[in-house]
Amino acid sequence: MTDPAADSTASPARTPLFLDCDTGVDDALTLGYLAASPGVELVGVGSVSGNCSAETGARNTLDLLALLGLPDVPVHVGAHDPLAGSFAGGAPHVHGADGVGGTSGRELPRSAGEPSGTSAARALVDAARERPGQLVVLAVGPFTNLALALDLEPELPRLVRSLTVMGGAALAPGNVTPVAEANVHNDPEAARRVVEAGFDLTVVGLDVTMRHLFEEEHRRALLDAGTPVGAALGAMLGHYFAFYTDVFGRPCCSLHDPLAAAIALGDVALASAPRVKLTVDDTDGPGRGQTIADLRALYRGLPDRSPEDPRVVLEVAEEFAPLLLERLLPL
Amino acid sequence: MTDPAADSTASPARTPLFLDCDTGVDDALTLGYLAASPGVELVGVGSVSGNCSAETGARNTLDLLALLGLPDVPVHVGAHDPLAGSFAGGAPHVHGADGVGGTSGRELPRSAGEPSGTSAARALVDAARERPGQLVVLAVGPFTNLALALDLEPELPRLVRSLTVMGGAALAPGNVTPVAEANVHNDPEAARRVVEAGFDLTVVGLDVTMRHLFEEEHRRALLDAGTPVGAALGAMLGHYFAFYTDVFGRPCCSLHDPLAAAIALGDVALASAPRVKLTVDDTDGPGRGQTIADLRALYRGLPDRSPEDPRVVLEVAEEFAPLLLERLLPL
Repeated sequence: MTDPAADSTASPARTPLFLDCDTGVDDALTLGYLAASPGVELVGVGSVSGNCSAETGARNTLDLLALLGLPDVPVHVGAHDPLAGSFAGGAPHVHGADGVGGTSGRELPRSAGEPSGTSAARALVDAARERPGQLVVLAVGPFTNLALALDLEPELPRLVRSLTVMGGAALAPGNVTPVAEANVHNDPEAARRVVEAGFDLTVVGLDVTMRHLFEEEHRRALLDAGTPVGAALGAMLGHYFAFYTDVFGRPCCSLHDPLAAAIALGDVALASAPRVKLTVDDTDGPGRGQTIADLRALYRGLPDRSPEDPRVVLEVAEEFAPLLLERLLPL
Repeated sequence: MTDPAADSTASPARTPLFLDCDTGVDDALTLGYLAASPGVELVGVGSVSGNCSAETGARNTLDLLALLGLPDVPVHVGAHDPLAGSFAGGAPHVHGADGVGGTSGRELPRSAGEPSGTSAARALVDAARERPGQLVVLAVGPFTNLALALDLEPELPRLVRSLTVMGGAALAPGNVTPVAEANVHNDPEAARRVVEAGFDLTVVGLDVTMRHLFEEEHRRALLDAGTPVGAALGAMLGHYFAFYTDVFGRPCCSLHDPLAAAIALGDVALASAPRVKLTVDDTDGPGRGQTIADLRALYRGLPDRSPEDPRVVLEVAEEFAPLLLERLLPL
């Protein structure tokens, strides 16, 4: 039997993916995970201020893409400031002043690449229009660029195949306030617009990302791999682990962004991911930046699935750290 | 050996308790539980609009106290309206138009008692001043009367021994909005004042009350007891169960208020009740009425206990329904 798709001279169809990020140590792991995913065609990467400034995030992304052997993937600088207010300086205590744990220009060499002249929002809209119904969008930083893209193209939710975001906390505590997660809290106005825009949306929040961790043994394995990628990721994880030692009581880290990537690609099975009404608190009250998911049906065991509502991931069915390490080690 | 406290002619010291409530079917169970608690001296009961109006709640309370053999406990009508806005009519779909599932004047006979001429807030302050450091306060309705009592006596948090409230939801979904529980949502401005006032405060919310249920077998046992109390409580539970059938998928009900009473009296052991920072969302946003507990320390297994912070009950160590039934059956 002859299957044209299996013809060794033809590329099998790969999933076109646009990444919006704020690179960032766990964003760096995500870039590695995507680079190691043979089924993915990374069509572009936008940057947004979050862990660090949009400009710094784009620099880190260019350097990582070069290290990962993907120097031709275009990188687009996105919004420096959130929709309301201005960028507050990011999280240098978490990700380092350079966003990559002090590895910039050291274990993570500077590359020759430069950002495109196109904004992240415009690049996303262009990428979506070029392949209607096919583009998988993965957003692991604040939602500013996505909100700006909705301004440019209100039909974006129907032009893309799906949107998966790392952000929020449905039932779990927040990480920057008792109820708010950083990506949402950095731009609640944008997050509210995006979650209410009608995307086929999957939300990967702290409910799951705080339960999937890289431990010292994983970091050690990266360092021991003897590769430039392993050396860079292992070194920046050293900085990231130091922050999380205060959170978890031991050196380790949450796999926020790479877990969202794996879920966007269907690489891990989900044990609980109900589709429920979702909004974002964009008041100036104590709930600012909270994702409010209507999970009241949990009391009777769950739902009532509404196909048009966002999918909120509450439980992943398998361990993710081993899969991530397996992908990163050969790079 | 002679122990004066065991002298059969002397009353052992009983815990003076002031109840503020919005009677209500589960408030009725609470009155039964307190009446059956030999260590409790019920010094007064205030009413507040919540499940029904403060006036109706006082009527129900008087009738229940008479049925329970406590016709001399004074009942004080409290606030009809919340601090902001006005009473919206209560929850007749949950508790019946009369607040007691249609039993008023039937299985729950009208009594001759009348409310005192004193407001609930004033009566609470008086009761606290009469026994400084001794009064246990249990509030199972909206927090309006407590906020008004703080206006009358700002030192109230230090005058009473403790305050236990049924209200809020820390990690569990809400019951009137995705994040808000009814007692808090009915008067968020009052709730915020009270939780921030410095009481030795224990908060019993949906995290536990939605996990401790009366089932049809318990209701049947009350009806089969052949007592006037069993007949009244069993009949009103029939109405209450009908509402909860939509929530839990079977006839049963949450034991919101009586569980708070048992916790106030130390009758059930707590498996998890961390002392944490607590506030209430009193904005007009989507989080209005949410109790916001800072449980971020959960990520490292928990706390960091601050003796001055409220205690938020997250887990009760034992089943409560059997204890409640055991107390109610002999009444």
